[in-house]
Amino acid sequence: MKKIQLQPNTFLYPMPLVIVGTMADDRPNFITIAYCGIVQHTPPMISIASSKVHFSNKWIKRNRSFSVNIPSSDMIELTDYIGMYSGRETDKSEICELFCGDIPSAPMIKQSPLSLQCKLMESIEVGGVNEIFIGEILKVYANEDCITNGLPDITKLQPILFSMHDNNYWGVGKHLGKAWNIGKNFNPNTKKDGQ
Amino acid sequence: MKKIQLQPNTFLYPMPLVIVGTMADDRPNFITIAYCGIVQHTPPMISIASSKVHFSNKWIKRNRSFSVNIPSSDMIELTDYIGMYSGRETDKSEICELFCGDIPSAPMIKQSPLSLQCKLMESIEVGGVNEIFIGEILKVYANEDCITNGLPDITKLQPILFSMHDNNYWGVGKHLGKAWNIGKNFNPNTKKDGQ
Repeated sequence: MKKIQLQPNTFLYPMPLVIVGTMADDRPNFITIAYCGIVQHTPPMISIASSKVHFSNKWIKRNRSFSVNIPSSDMIELTDYIGMYSGRETDKSEICELFCGDIPSAPMIKQSPLSLQCKLMESIEVGGVNEIFIGEILKVYANEDCITNGLPDITKLQPILFSMHDNNYWGVGKHLGKAWNIGKNFNPNTKKDGQ
Repeated sequence: MKKIQLQPNTFLYPMPLVIVGTMADDRPNFITIAYCGIVQHTPPMISIASSKVHFSNKWIKRNRSFSVNIPSSDMIELTDYIGMYSGRETDKSEICELFCGDIPSAPMIKQSPLSLQCKLMESIEVGGVNEIFIGEILKVYANEDCITNGLPDITKLQPILFSMHDNNYWGVGKHLGKAWNIGKNFNPNTKKDGQ
């Protein structure tokens, strides 16, 4: 297969898609974010990144907290809507049912099957337009019907994937295998030629 | 729907899955990582996080570079295998065809349909077992047959998703909608009760 070079860009596939919540003074506000990822297991931490021009950044830093809501695929219109309008001009506090959990400055979306409340640990700038917020995951709320054997079940959560640049949302597909297991089938002595 | 609280953990669904490459002295080495995410668009940057005990960390810091290879679903056995064995004891430089692109200290996997070469910009510790590496994406290599209209096509890349905790790999599923578009169908005045 011929390799071609592309201009450098944010080419990670897929990106997860989350709705980040924080209080803007006394008003709950939300932003849709695809720039996110787990960064640590113990203690559990997540990073989200957002352009400095976004309304939410100031409030995340002021509150030193935020929520991360995993939307299910049946929330796709709401999720996209939240990403289309800035909290500066649009009050998003009344467009869905909320709950506040143990950290009131990190409001959560009730319809979301899985929500995390995070304490801001670090705000990082790396020479560009974004701020990176690293939060410790302190509280986790899940819909009871999305749990299997005590853990969130991706087939019940039905999260949304995002392919940037062509602006498409996708669902989770078929099961491919078990981690730390299917690799036992790999024969390291049978090198594939990459084609 | 009843909300239940779970113990705090790394509950992001789905996680992307990538193979990170770096040189260990003169030997290409690879590690499978699910703790990753885009953190900035301009300039494009990606974060990966890895436990300090991992063999790769030292070399990423020494080389100040790494590659990020997006594995396709037909690479699942290789991808899992790379995650199962440490480069300290296992030479992974001969298990698949490699190419080196413009940054030789960031070796890439030829079979991977999309590979990024990154310059290490920041190493961050946030009070725990992991180091977070933020890299600027300087070079992008793609298989020509995975490109549509000049961009990587997720339906051709067929990347792998990971659900941590239950240790499952998944494919990309059905198309759900267009970003910055399907939200136009949302009626902000028809509040759903979340259940």
